[in-house]
Amino acid sequence: MSEKLVLHEFSLSGNCYKVRLTAALLGIPIERREYDLMKGETRTPEFLSRVNSNGRVPVLQVGDRFIPESNAAAYYIADSSRLIPADRFDHADTLRWMSWEQYNHEPNIATLRFWMRWFGEANLSEAQRLQLDPKRAAGNAALKLMDDHLENRDWFVGREMSLADICLFAYTHVAGEADFRLNAFPNVAEWIGRVESEPGFIPMEA
Amino acid sequence: MSEKLVLHEFSLSGNCYKVRLTAALLGIPIERREYDLMKGETRTPEFLSRVNSNGRVPVLQVGDRFIPESNAAAYYIADSSRLIPADRFDHADTLRWMSWEQYNHEPNIATLRFWMRWFGEANLSEAQRLQLDPKRAAGNAALKLMDDHLENRDWFVGREMSLADICLFAYTHVAGEADFRLNAFPNVAEWIGRVESEPGFIPMEA
Repeated sequence: MSEKLVLHEFSLSGNCYKVRLTAALLGIPIERREYDLMKGETRTPEFLSRVNSNGRVPVLQVGDRFIPESNAAAYYIADSSRLIPADRFDHADTLRWMSWEQYNHEPNIATLRFWMRWFGEANLSEAQRLQLDPKRAAGNAALKLMDDHLENRDWFVGREMSLADICLFAYTHVAGEADFRLNAFPNVAEWIGRVESEPGFIPMEA
Repeated sequence: MSEKLVLHEFSLSGNCYKVRLTAALLGIPIERREYDLMKGETRTPEFLSRVNSNGRVPVLQVGDRFIPESNAAAYYIADSSRLIPADRFDHADTLRWMSWEQYNHEPNIATLRFWMRWFGEANLSEAQRLQLDPKRAAGNAALKLMDDHLENRDWFVGREMSLADICLFAYTHVAGEADFRLNAFPNVAEWIGRVESEPGFIPMEA
């Protein structure tokens, strides 16, 4: 890659970590620019007009162009690497798990983590409070689905680690911060250890 | 494609329509198998064990293998076609809009459409009722973001129609069924007409 990569991020966000971990596993250098979400730094007029009109991070800057959305930013970095399966079915299956994570996993597990760890349960609205139990149930169902899928396999797609594993790992390995009990999902717990043993792995706090 | 394609679907779901429209625009034949969501036909033990453990449609069957998730199923069909940009940045940007749709557009516009058209407002839970206003606001913000993006361009990525347009079109063009006012977003309205004029276009009800 000839153009400089800059990750606009909030480093304790799992979505941002996906992009960082992808780059680390592939040995691709990226610069980092940190934003304080709680101070609204991704909602300033300058951020909205220049970086991402959706007011969110991560955004991957490629030269003077910008790629929002964690899946897309991580894919840009991993494009044509060993993390993107060449086989047509496995490639679509990788996108399948990445989409599933954003729709069925992140809105439950990541949102509960955010509410409990940063927002504070006392500050939740009534609408949010009524979503606590449904999100808890949906988060556990997501972890169960992952655990079942890993019953006879080491990785989510095919026989090698792929971008699907990275995207699923980001919020799964910190699900305990939202009081999910990972030891109830032994295949998931083993898979977490497998990801953490990969050469080049970096922890979220790195 | 040598293996037979079967779309497991609920045909009035925009997510299922994405897959069907992609195939139609590319002239690729697919068989269709309809499920009645309201009768729980995607939650039967057989469906969960064989088709999709997540209990949802669309699922694209490729021979005897299955690809859940609309984005992944549509991508499988469009792989290597004119709907998938070859340029690395444009390719990631396509995935960006597809992810954005699933996270910022579908949970608001499609969910309100489902609640109003199939579920019935009287049957909503208290938690759902409290989400009506936030989802309305978020849906309008999504349409505004699309309208702004289309201010100086015909398509969402690059200069040609891509899979991003198809995925965004599916629920946008029926947003009126959830009482969103599309004429308040003139660039979106023009773009809808552009999609509908594409050779091979099929309406949702086809």
